[in-house]
Amino acid sequence: MSAESRFLTLLRLLAYHPAAQGLQDDVALLPVGNARLVLTSDTMVEGIHHLPTDPPAAVGWKLAAVNLSDLAAKGARPLGCLLNYALSGDDAWDAAFLEGLGEALERHAMPLLGGDTVRMPADAPRSYSLTAIGEAQSSVPSRTGARAGDRLYVTGPMGDAGVGLELLRADPAAAGPLVEAYRRPRPRLAEGALLAPHVSAMMDVSDGLLLDASRLAAASGLAAVIDHIPLSSALEAARGASTAVQLAAARAGDDYELLFALPPSQKPPVRAIPVGRLQEGRGLTLLIDGAVMPLPDRLGWEH
Amino acid sequence: MSAESRFLTLLRLLAYHPAAQGLQDDVALLPVGNARLVLTSDTMVEGIHHLPTDPPAAVGWKLAAVNLSDLAAKGARPLGCLLNYALSGDDAWDAAFLEGLGEALERHAMPLLGGDTVRMPADAPRSYSLTAIGEAQSSVPSRTGARAGDRLYVTGPMGDAGVGLELLRADPAAAGPLVEAYRRPRPRLAEGALLAPHVSAMMDVSDGLLLDASRLAAASGLAAVIDHIPLSSALEAARGASTAVQLAAARAGDDYELLFALPPSQKPPVRAIPVGRLQEGRGLTLLIDGAVMPLPDRLGWEH
Repeated sequence: MSAESRFLTLLRLLAYHPAAQGLQDDVALLPVGNARLVLTSDTMVEGIHHLPTDPPAAVGWKLAAVNLSDLAAKGARPLGCLLNYALSGDDAWDAAFLEGLGEALERHAMPLLGGDTVRMPADAPRSYSLTAIGEAQSSVPSRTGARAGDRLYVTGPMGDAGVGLELLRADPAAAGPLVEAYRRPRPRLAEGALLAPHVSAMMDVSDGLLLDASRLAAASGLAAVIDHIPLSSALEAARGASTAVQLAAARAGDDYELLFALPPSQKPPVRAIPVGRLQEGRGLTLLIDGAVMPLPDRLGWEH
Repeated sequence: MSAESRFLTLLRLLAYHPAAQGLQDDVALLPVGNARLVLTSDTMVEGIHHLPTDPPAAVGWKLAAVNLSDLAAKGARPLGCLLNYALSGDDAWDAAFLEGLGEALERHAMPLLGGDTVRMPADAPRSYSLTAIGEAQSSVPSRTGARAGDRLYVTGPMGDAGVGLELLRADPAAAGPLVEAYRRPRPRLAEGALLAPHVSAMMDVSDGLLLDASRLAAASGLAAVIDHIPLSSALEAARGASTAVQLAAARAGDDYELLFALPPSQKPPVRAIPVGRLQEGRGLTLLIDGAVMPLPDRLGWEH
């Protein structure tokens, strides 16, 4: 059991309020007056969640995007956010971070409402948290509502961000659509809002399709079958579409597309790519080009 | 201009939504449906906001208390909070932190709803953020509403936490009521709720009476006169009540009592100690034992 798992076990003892949902979901759901709040918070640490060489504007964008993606998975409307920022000791870096953060917030109509700015001791790694507050619309999809027979879809191709990260590790000056996918993920707020009233379950794919699909299936008490791993033309151009490339794309994190389940009779109300289905049982089955694959030891990015 | 001031200037450009209140207050005020949310977030960093030798349970308690104190100053009811926690690499430390945090949350009926737990690179200082969500009751006091002639009060003595910190710096094993005041401040939620409908302005005293009173006066476009610095019997027993001791108590941070303004005709509805008044003009006048004092270069703790 990792230190994080042990800590989460203790944390769950404190988080017994129903709004916390047992810390099993990415968000808390809190009724206030006649509204329902969707609450989420993500921390990013230099060297853990992003490369030290990532441009500060991209880091700021990404911090906003990962939080907005959690709201998107609930079909929630962004209301506002609070930023906790540790000054890096480099004014230009901090200013560029804010520029990227502001750009993402502006683009998605998410007002910055407050937070806290602190100094850190010299040589401490940069770190930042954003807490996002959204308002639930008519329906709030969970991970737990899928039914046997439901089809699984994603709102876009898998693995672009993962290959973008590989390209940057090899060459910090790398550029192009795959690097952009890693640095500037686009939270699927519009898609999430359109999907929320229809899906039986939904979540964002932050840790890889295989891991997140198996989480959705487990939360719904079902087994997942993944039989298609959609690749972008940019990824195919860079890496081809071999079994190894497809497998890597299915395990790569940071895509921030939405993964959702729909009854087979229903067509997705947004552009979406079928990736598999849910059935009675438990666990995950992976088919690549029709052949059942042995599952890798690590299904995705556990952080 | 410090790095923090420069950063805050840029941050204000992003925080133009009315709920952000220009980042001039400790909280954001966000209407949602028929409710009004009070939002606040505080980060604590080891070595900056607390001593590395502070017991982890006290650090956890304090992180909860400083956020609850911001809600208290608005007379708000706690609804829930989110924790951003960087694992320290020391399971026992992390568990004790959660125990202290949980104790403070439980005591003040503040549910823990979610957050994010991350690993940090080795040797990084510990850091933690809490974001608190409260619901405004009938009235929400600001810093800006005081009028000339109003009397200024605090809900308790000043300087205990400051002397507690001094004692701990001299001897990490120090104990007693002053050390407790530093380690386990009590957010004045009950007092804040009773005061909110009556006061013309209110805030918590986190950075010292002189600095916070001058902020309240400036926000209200007035001058502050401080003519009494209330000391606890524990502080007098430890340090006496000389002019120097009173001055130090008026500049010490971390007290987390409420500072509020009331018209002279009105009696405070809670136990409170008069400390001065507001008048036309600007700036701060300090009297100790009836004599006007030259103001110190630093009025309090700017962090």
